[in-house]
Amino acid sequence: MTLTQDAAASPNAIRATHHQASLIVQGEDRTGIVAVLASILTRHGANIVSLDQYSDNPQGGAFFQRTVFALDNLRAALPAIEKDLDARLVRDYGLTYTLRDLSVPKRVAIFASRSDHCLLDLLWRHRRGQLPVSVSMVISNHPDTAEEVRSFGIPFFHVPCQGPGKSAAEAEQLRLLTGNVDFIVLARYMQILSGDFIEQVGVPIINIHHSFLPAFIGAGPYARARERGVKLIGATAHYVTEDLDEGPIIEQDVVRVTHADTAADLMRRGADVERAVLSRAVLWHAEERVIRNGIHTIVFA
Amino acid sequence: MTLTQDAAASPNAIRATHHQASLIVQGEDRTGIVAVLASILTRHGANIVSLDQYSDNPQGGAFFQRTVFALDNLRAALPAIEKDLDARLVRDYGLTYTLRDLSVPKRVAIFASRSDHCLLDLLWRHRRGQLPVSVSMVISNHPDTAEEVRSFGIPFFHVPCQGPGKSAAEAEQLRLLTGNVDFIVLARYMQILSGDFIEQVGVPIINIHHSFLPAFIGAGPYARARERGVKLIGATAHYVTEDLDEGPIIEQDVVRVTHADTAADLMRRGADVERAVLSRAVLWHAEERVIRNGIHTIVFA
Amino acid sequence: MTLTQDAAASPNAIRATHHQASLIVQGEDRTGIVAVLASILTRHGANIVSLDQYSDNPQGGAFFQRTVFALDNLRAALPAIEKDLDARLVRDYGLTYTLRDLSVPKRVAIFASRSDHCLLDLLWRHRRGQLPVSVSMVISNHPDTAEEVRSFGIPFFHVPCQGPGKSAAEAEQLRLLTGNVDFIVLARYMQILSGDFIEQVGVPIINIHHSFLPAFIGAGPYARARERGVKLIGATAHYVTEDLDEGPIIEQDVVRVTHADTAADLMRRGADVERAVLSRAVLWHAEERVIRNGIHTIVFA
Amino acid sequence: MTLTQDAAASPNAIRATHHQASLIVQGEDRTGIVAVLASILTRHGANIVSLDQYSDNPQGGAFFQRTVFALDNLRAALPAIEKDLDARLVRDYGLTYTLRDLSVPKRVAIFASRSDHCLLDLLWRHRRGQLPVSVSMVISNHPDTAEEVRSFGIPFFHVPCQGPGKSAAEAEQLRLLTGNVDFIVLARYMQILSGDFIEQVGVPIINIHHSFLPAFIGAGPYARARERGVKLIGATAHYVTEDLDEGPIIEQDVVRVTHADTAADLMRRGADVERAVLSRAVLWHAEERVIRNGIHTIVFA
Repeated sequence: MTLTQDAAASPNAIRATHHQASLIVQGEDRTGIVAVLASILTRHGANIVSLDQYSDNPQGGAFFQRTVFALDNLRAALPAIEKDLDARLVRDYGLTYTLRDLSVPKRVAIFASRSDHCLLDLLWRHRRGQLPVSVSMVISNHPDTAEEVRSFGIPFFHVPCQGPGKSAAEAEQLRLLTGNVDFIVLARYMQILSGDFIEQVGVPIINIHHSFLPAFIGAGPYARARERGVKLIGATAHYVTEDLDEGPIIEQDVVRVTHADTAADLMRRGADVERAVLSRAVLWHAEERVIRNGIHTIVFA
Repeated sequence: MTLTQDAAASPNAIRATHHQASLIVQGEDRTGIVAVLASILTRHGANIVSLDQYSDNPQGGAFFQRTVFALDNLRAALPAIEKDLDARLVRDYGLTYTLRDLSVPKRVAIFASRSDHCLLDLLWRHRRGQLPVSVSMVISNHPDTAEEVRSFGIPFFHVPCQGPGKSAAEAEQLRLLTGNVDFIVLARYMQILSGDFIEQVGVPIINIHHSFLPAFIGAGPYARARERGVKLIGATAHYVTEDLDEGPIIEQDVVRVTHADTAADLMRRGADVERAVLSRAVLWHAEERVIRNGIHTIVFA
Repeated sequence: MTLTQDAAASPNAIRATHHQASLIVQGEDRTGIVAVLASILTRHGANIVSLDQYSDNPQGGAFFQRTVFALDNLRAALPAIEKDLDARLVRDYGLTYTLRDLSVPKRVAIFASRSDHCLLDLLWRHRRGQLPVSVSMVISNHPDTAEEVRSFGIPFFHVPCQGPGKSAAEAEQLRLLTGNVDFIVLARYMQILSGDFIEQVGVPIINIHHSFLPAFIGAGPYARARERGVKLIGATAHYVTEDLDEGPIIEQDVVRVTHADTAADLMRRGADVERAVLSRAVLWHAEERVIRNGIHTIVFA
Repeated sequence: MTLTQDAAASPNAIRATHHQASLIVQGEDRTGIVAVLASILTRHGANIVSLDQYSDNPQGGAFFQRTVFALDNLRAALPAIEKDLDARLVRDYGLTYTLRDLSVPKRVAIFASRSDHCLLDLLWRHRRGQLPVSVSMVISNHPDTAEEVRSFGIPFFHVPCQGPGKSAAEAEQLRLLTGNVDFIVLARYMQILSGDFIEQVGVPIINIHHSFLPAFIGAGPYARARERGVKLIGATAHYVTEDLDEGPIIEQDVVRVTHADTAADLMRRGADVERAVLSRAVLWHAEERVIRNGIHTIVFA
């Protein structure tokens, strides 16, 4: 108990991203990439704020770099920078890149079902200024959380998803989403998305699975964890692919349990891990810290 | 992503405590205490559900035991059990005990200031059925969280606490609290309680301090943690005594930080640890798992 | 850097177990078990030092209790205590029990292959006085660690285990072990024990598997962990059964890894987790803190 | 239990550092540093293997960069690279740099007293190929570990350090060390080094303190941790300065303890944390991953 005002003084703890852009570059590793890239940024007067680099093999492997740079008249300068990157990085070095103005938050839709712990944690972190995203909408196959979601000022859409009408539900979801979101978060959404939906929606989808994958793939992981008698339970945030629970892992964590923990205890402890893991994954995705590389991710956290 | 309904099926994961009572016994260790205690419970037909015991020295140290027992007509049987405990444990063995019907939740008042993370986490866990308490009221020296607190159905009282009127504020707090609460939680309440208040309110007070005590006692722990260059930051839940930040520690935890974390980053990461540590301390206190022993605690978690 | 002599003053940090015995009781839960058990111990003048209890269902589940008690003339008193336990616990309540004089260390044989990290960690902890066991021998299918093991004063036997002669190797192992050990530890022993061997040797066998089971059952877990792109790797200590990597889990732990960790990095980080997890499992087994319950364990750590 | 040979196949898991050099650059942040630096390396045909960068303030703060690059004829090329760095980085940008051939291991002396856990863990990791250092000698104020140290093939010197002859002991230590070591590790060395010694020896000194600094500065931290009733104990590796336990922190970690842990238990649990934390600090220092910045460290781990 103290008199300090530190937290109160700065409740919204987002990093200043005015005039900052992220540049993700990937491709085949070759000598000189860093130099070319840095010289382009320098020529435009940009100051490199942070730089992370990874090469999976110094002798001709794959190269990944995340650069954040600051530039006063960023928005005006971006087209010229892109032109240079196209000329040097793409044409000369055969690399691909993604350049993004970090002052423009990514737009996200959150899918949920009855469980509210992951959903509310994301909304609460967002309101607190800790997630640099714009929450476009919450879509749920249950109406339970409508009032709570709307109290955050976020649109809530109830799209039931039962029986034979699954494709109808997905069609409605697509109508709501198309053009409105940059990525989707499944915050304990208890429905399997079809391959068609994943393809048509065309944006990254992050799911939270309530186990330490690849242990307990599929349904009922807590019950199976208890059945197996494990001493730790976990949660995994991953990108969704057509293969259930097999997508690239973004983040994982665990918590200790004992023989005395009931199935309800596991759910309660696991819920805390789920919301922590999911919020980290969403933050890192929003800050362009996660690069997909086949079935893997590079995370510059 | 799965179809499992496990979390949804049992959203309120509190342990069944119908017909259950907790019995805390402490005093000088002597041969035979467990036997006497167990025989009293057996005579009344009670079944021991869990039993934790600690003796700080087998040769004549202090003895602590927490027993949870189940009994069908618990409420009716308690007076007779107490009579037996008085006769055998108190008179014959010189021990003290606390017997509590676990189906009656403890009543708690939460004190808060501007920061909402600990406050909302407790309210949310309570609504979710994870904290076996009755939240009597929230008292804050700022009006900011009034609407949010009331949306949980909890009374909110704004008691400003500035300038020379501190004793007036404490007097008002005492009027609100007297007879209405069994313990108080300071959920990042940024005022120091006077010794008079602590004495007059007469119930245990749990505080969350935003450092790993005894490191960074007092104000501004995150700023000082950054100044010292520590690689982990922490939070500590403790009982409040007149000595600032010196009360018996209930629970602590830490999270890793790096040189790259700003003061705002420390606050954000620390907030997650604070709410986790505080919620565990409140849960354990509510379940009678914490026994105070001078400046220490025995925690049967 | 300090002048304190605290560690030097007491290098061998084993708990005093003179005149102490452990009593494990298990069976069907019924009202009164604790009282009967405590009254037997009290009648013999024993003082209960610690008591842990677990019932998997207060309404007629399975009951497990670990009691440690102190008694001055322990060895002389044990037969009479056993007689009382047979009469009351076994006959009247249908329970089973294990009573052990904790001043007599369990005898263990350690099986190893080329990797020395788990083996040396156990030997070093044992020499330091942290493992209350007597190490009867080390058996390895490689001669590499012979000199190191013998420098600890422990007998080393090289039993090659290649080609068709596996049953010959197991026969020789059985000759060495029979009558000489109370349990076996596989400290990264890279051979699968046959069902015949497990049955004939007739003592508990603890294995360390280099993954967080049930993830990555079988060979090459680190390579497969890297292939899957997990963000944590782990280790699991479990009792060996005929079903490979399916035995009751005693202890698990994990460590964080990143995309930048090579297979060699995973092995290095994993080795630290392996030796930590295995040493905890061996300590707990030696102190009678682990009770097997079908495919599960009750661990009173 | 598996048949995999993964650990055995590559027991010495050090990263290949042939033909690799590390380049640490620090100074005032200015636009273009990364570009200049990368262009110098590119001009010499070096391929950047990893690059970490940190600026404590994008608007004119301090800049720190660690670059590892590969170059076939590294040794021959270093002088020319240094000449370019002097010309561009030092003269034009006012930065300082450290360039080191990573194939030449740093030479370390380990100071120890009676406790062997940190000492043996370092020697064992070194033998296993996990610490890219050359251990020049072990110096101890007690003869106890002489035989064990020499069994690793490492010179052991007993330099008693009692009574009024402390300056004599330090003089002898200086004679042994001068010209022979690049850094010193205090592996639970229970003597305070004088300011004179620190100045004269002229190489970095890493100490392991057996508490989570700044908690429990000075002597007897475990006893004081138990006295305060903390729920976690820790260890801190830091560079030694004249201010006792106040030097820049390199690494810290903690482990959970309970009310039931005796002072001996704390020492045992703490010993595991101490050796883990110290070995990480030594590894990172040896790999040039730690940059001192006043009372802070930048750790590119």
